[in-house]
Amino acid sequence: MRAVTFQAPGEVRVDDVPEPELLAPDDAIVRIEATGVCGSDLHIYHGRVKIEPGFTIGHEYVGTVVAAGEGVHRVAVGDRVLGCFQTACGECFFCRRGNYHRCVNSRTFGHGAGLGSLQGTQADQALVPHANLVLRRVPDVMGTGFHAAVSSGLQPGDVAAVLGLGPVGLCAVQAARAIGAARVLAVDSVPERLAVAESFGAIPVHLGEQDVRAVAREYTEGRGVDVCIDAVGDPRVLDTAIRITRAVGTVQCIGVYAERAEVHMGLLWLKSMTLCGGQANVIGHVDRVLALMSAGVLDPSALVTHHMPLDDAVEAYAIYDRREALKIVLQP
Amino acid sequence: MRAVTFQAPGEVRVDDVPEPELLAPDDAIVRIEATGVCGSDLHIYHGRVKIEPGFTIGHEYVGTVVAAGEGVHRVAVGDRVLGCFQTACGECFFCRRGNYHRCVNSRTFGHGAGLGSLQGTQADQALVPHANLVLRRVPDVMGTGFHAAVSSGLQPGDVAAVLGLGPVGLCAVQAARAIGAARVLAVDSVPERLAVAESFGAIPVHLGEQDVRAVAREYTEGRGVDVCIDAVGDPRVLDTAIRITRAVGTVQCIGVYAERAEVHMGLLWLKSMTLCGGQANVIGHVDRVLALMSAGVLDPSALVTHHMPLDDAVEAYAIYDRREALKIVLQP
Amino acid sequence: MRAVTFQAPGEVRVDDVPEPELLAPDDAIVRIEATGVCGSDLHIYHGRVKIEPGFTIGHEYVGTVVAAGEGVHRVAVGDRVLGCFQTACGECFFCRRGNYHRCVNSRTFGHGAGLGSLQGTQADQALVPHANLVLRRVPDVMGTGFHAAVSSGLQPGDVAAVLGLGPVGLCAVQAARAIGAARVLAVDSVPERLAVAESFGAIPVHLGEQDVRAVAREYTEGRGVDVCIDAVGDPRVLDTAIRITRAVGTVQCIGVYAERAEVHMGLLWLKSMTLCGGQANVIGHVDRVLALMSAGVLDPSALVTHHMPLDDAVEAYAIYDRREALKIVLQP
Amino acid sequence: MRAVTFQAPGEVRVDDVPEPELLAPDDAIVRIEATGVCGSDLHIYHGRVKIEPGFTIGHEYVGTVVAAGEGVHRVAVGDRVLGCFQTACGECFFCRRGNYHRCVNSRTFGHGAGLGSLQGTQADQALVPHANLVLRRVPDVMGTGFHAAVSSGLQPGDVAAVLGLGPVGLCAVQAARAIGAARVLAVDSVPERLAVAESFGAIPVHLGEQDVRAVAREYTEGRGVDVCIDAVGDPRVLDTAIRITRAVGTVQCIGVYAERAEVHMGLLWLKSMTLCGGQANVIGHVDRVLALMSAGVLDPSALVTHHMPLDDAVEAYAIYDRREALKIVLQP
Repeated sequence: MRAVTFQAPGEVRVDDVPEPELLAPDDAIVRIEATGVCGSDLHIYHGRVKIEPGFTIGHEYVGTVVAAGEGVHRVAVGDRVLGCFQTACGECFFCRRGNYHRCVNSRTFGHGAGLGSLQGTQADQALVPHANLVLRRVPDVMGTGFHAAVSSGLQPGDVAAVLGLGPVGLCAVQAARAIGAARVLAVDSVPERLAVAESFGAIPVHLGEQDVRAVAREYTEGRGVDVCIDAVGDPRVLDTAIRITRAVGTVQCIGVYAERAEVHMGLLWLKSMTLCGGQANVIGHVDRVLALMSAGVLDPSALVTHHMPLDDAVEAYAIYDRREALKIVLQP
Repeated sequence: MRAVTFQAPGEVRVDDVPEPELLAPDDAIVRIEATGVCGSDLHIYHGRVKIEPGFTIGHEYVGTVVAAGEGVHRVAVGDRVLGCFQTACGECFFCRRGNYHRCVNSRTFGHGAGLGSLQGTQADQALVPHANLVLRRVPDVMGTGFHAAVSSGLQPGDVAAVLGLGPVGLCAVQAARAIGAARVLAVDSVPERLAVAESFGAIPVHLGEQDVRAVAREYTEGRGVDVCIDAVGDPRVLDTAIRITRAVGTVQCIGVYAERAEVHMGLLWLKSMTLCGGQANVIGHVDRVLALMSAGVLDPSALVTHHMPLDDAVEAYAIYDRREALKIVLQP
Repeated sequence: MRAVTFQAPGEVRVDDVPEPELLAPDDAIVRIEATGVCGSDLHIYHGRVKIEPGFTIGHEYVGTVVAAGEGVHRVAVGDRVLGCFQTACGECFFCRRGNYHRCVNSRTFGHGAGLGSLQGTQADQALVPHANLVLRRVPDVMGTGFHAAVSSGLQPGDVAAVLGLGPVGLCAVQAARAIGAARVLAVDSVPERLAVAESFGAIPVHLGEQDVRAVAREYTEGRGVDVCIDAVGDPRVLDTAIRITRAVGTVQCIGVYAERAEVHMGLLWLKSMTLCGGQANVIGHVDRVLALMSAGVLDPSALVTHHMPLDDAVEAYAIYDRREALKIVLQP
Repeated sequence: MRAVTFQAPGEVRVDDVPEPELLAPDDAIVRIEATGVCGSDLHIYHGRVKIEPGFTIGHEYVGTVVAAGEGVHRVAVGDRVLGCFQTACGECFFCRRGNYHRCVNSRTFGHGAGLGSLQGTQADQALVPHANLVLRRVPDVMGTGFHAAVSSGLQPGDVAAVLGLGPVGLCAVQAARAIGAARVLAVDSVPERLAVAESFGAIPVHLGEQDVRAVAREYTEGRGVDVCIDAVGDPRVLDTAIRITRAVGTVQCIGVYAERAEVHMGLLWLKSMTLCGGQANVIGHVDRVLALMSAGVLDPSALVTHHMPLDDAVEAYAIYDRREALKIVLQP
């Protein structure tokens, strides 16, 4: 079957690879119908995240179950499904607390030996371990697969800010509105992204042209926002987040941090703030997100700027790398 | 000044009464601009809730501050304000926990000596004690005053049901959608009310013509709804609520119960459910509700079927008593 | 092997039954070393809970793993283990939310076809499905097996009341103290049970000789207790619970209810209370309880009044039925 | 009356100052009976926190109410009281959410014009504004006044670590045990402090002689502690906290941070941790702490190493500055 494989920094290829086979009783095999290109894939593409040459990449997918082990009972052959980007065992210390994103046996699709040697989903088919936890039936055909939106501790009536309007930030904007934010300040410097955020009901704030701190004060009687989501992962963004968030407020870092950074602990302490880090608990939240998508409250289709055949994966990566696309979906 | 006073069961009157005066440093006086007629007023009108003849009734109001004691600092003379239906001291055991609705020194407007001898708001002016807690500035002119919507423990993506679509139930429908319910089943037997609920995004369920339990199962893969709001206050409604709610779900009784009732404790136990009772914590939630109204997410105007002058209060009560109105607003 | 089997109402027997065999990859077989006799067993003994004649009863157990399927990885052959009284699949709607007690595939040991046809633990050996979720390694030899203590929403500094001091109620008393209750009022009419509660740091309240409501007021400045646990399951006890609990407080019913009951909904509404029902989420809490037992904070040994050989099961049931024992542990 | 006043860095003096007078209806005057010397006082003593020469210092106190305004109704003249170190208005955005520690009108005793110009409590008498919120009746004579213990999100059965065993850290140790921590690792390099922590039921860990990370792994099956309290306020301590805390765990910084600091954001992100900063919400928690002290569960007396007369304040500060005391209580 065809699969998009990593070859070397800056080089991916559509290769011919063996079809997957069921290995464990709770494995399933999914025929991929759409699979996204994500910012994480770019980290691999650029060689910042190292994986083995020839490894299939990709971790966002919808498709149809074509085979399932005898222990798979929550989905069946023929079901259209959406899958999570990582697996979870359901039984370790963290899974038992619902923290599936920290499962000690977790494997991530398309990230090589470092994250569990699980072949990616930018291919005709993918093997899905622990299918009972990882896959969900999708009631109707969905235009795209995308990761679960953000759980941020936001309360109804809060004013939220989202810093950085890539696909993840825009999902956070949409989700914040859907769960009761009175106002969402959407901050970026790219006019097209600000326009998408505004179409989701957010107040666009142009970084550079507008004074973000002044806007935050304006909408909160001078207090600062209740919840601020850093969807970039950069110390300067975090600094802005800490400054524009009110006392006893929350800053949630969903953008990736990988190193030490200078943080204004004095301000964080003085304002009795909470700072949360880390990737989303996708398996823990996917049911809720799917329910909201199925009801039309959340709609990821506005984020997809390009649908392309899997065979054009090389071109897709080049486009994405030139930042000419918001979200690309590959279709085998 | 004019005031709507209770005279005897079935008899209210527009009377001439003395204007209020400031009594404590944190008192304010509000010139009433709109004041609602509520189902609770009907309890007084019918004599089921007993108050002294001549007492001014009414407890829903917006207006303008015309006088304020020296200890009032959160609103000022000239501010347009919305007020809560009850006062709170801000200092007792319950207030310190944010349970303002259970303040041990609380007084309710327009309910006579039994609830603190605080004259009502269906009048030209009203005295508002503890104005710092009870009043809120209203940014723009608001078409009506109405009480805070419901806090129900609902989580994003949940399926909710609201039983009973009077003004309170319809507010609950609107609020449930606003804070992330994927679906809201709105149950009543009056087609007009079902139509209003549907316009708020709910799924209307006609009690009597449809099988409520079957509809609940249909939208929840057979489990039952996550949260059910009993907005009636009747043991048969509560029984339905317990039956259509899923295991480990929540039934919230905002409809008034005043007596003992037969409850299916066996089912409640078997399903490990939570049952919550009691009136809303209005002071605790009013900021959030106002923020959502100000952002246009919540809009109470659809609930108001009649605007009438205060002088027509006698006729207004007769209309409301004949159930020909959903919500009546009196304007002095 | 030997096993205690139900024969007919009032008749149990120590029978010879076949040894269990592994059936699924995540099954384990445990050689039972101690197994409790519980109030639920009495329901079977008396015929109120109907099971098939010849079925092995019992559901409280500690022992040693003597066989394990290839999918069992959290315990191993030779491990001393404590097991939960019911199984959970780890993958259904409720398990994914951590509500293991409501697993749709759950089976309960020793309760016949009605609860999953899983043979009981009052035997030389027991088959344990889903062993990864159901079993836990026990660091040191533990004197007895007992159910997980109670999760009641209690906050540090609260005053709690426990109504009914059987083994479950006494566990609740001990756990309430361990997690920060300032005072625990322990209510029963049996002096021996009151003495055990007092030894756990509770304030004993003799039902009948003392005025429970007056004592509750005395310790709470007249407000009523913050949390009240009904460990009996009787409408009169529930009525007391609702009366002695403060406004915005919680009543938790861990005692079993199986039918309709008259509940003072008026009082529950007026006090804005929360009423929770249902059995404990043992799999969800067992790690925390074991950690507290291992640290010596919780100690169930004080509850065991009789250790008897499995061969004396017939006599054990007779003693327990005459209420001459608090907790009996059978040892094969 | 006598009062301990700041004069210049390194110089305090017992001065003669005017007695306080009631200024607002909810003011009270307290005759001080015991008043602590706290680490924060040392910041003033050293000139790091700047206040006006001649200003009375001190903010920990118990005493007796000798005068009260007409608006004071929760305490009365003659009551023995414990007071919080800061005041709160009870009415602002933060107070209405129970975040009294962030009250926008808050004033802190003994911290000069920068924190509200409220004279300190190391004096014969102190004026206490907003006495209804700030003061609490103390049922029996209490040996010392001390700040509220820590609210850390700790769950029953958790393993906690406390880094830094000054009075605040030791209070955190004691409180963690009282509210259900299975184990508390108490980390410091001073043997006397480790001994006090051990007497509170903690596991002492000698910083320098023991490998803190190894000990944390040993007690948590290699995962790291569930909750870690940084009671120092130093970036190196915070780094240790982030390293020894498990994934999806919480680090709470109660030690003071005033500046930027290098934080291992990469580790915090990778482990999906929560980092909370800031001083305790004393007014929000004081009722719970007093209830636990009154029940004997919390006992601050073990922390007081010196009782000295107020007249010896100069010597007391010198002793405290030489770190020869854990907690000094001055008695007028």
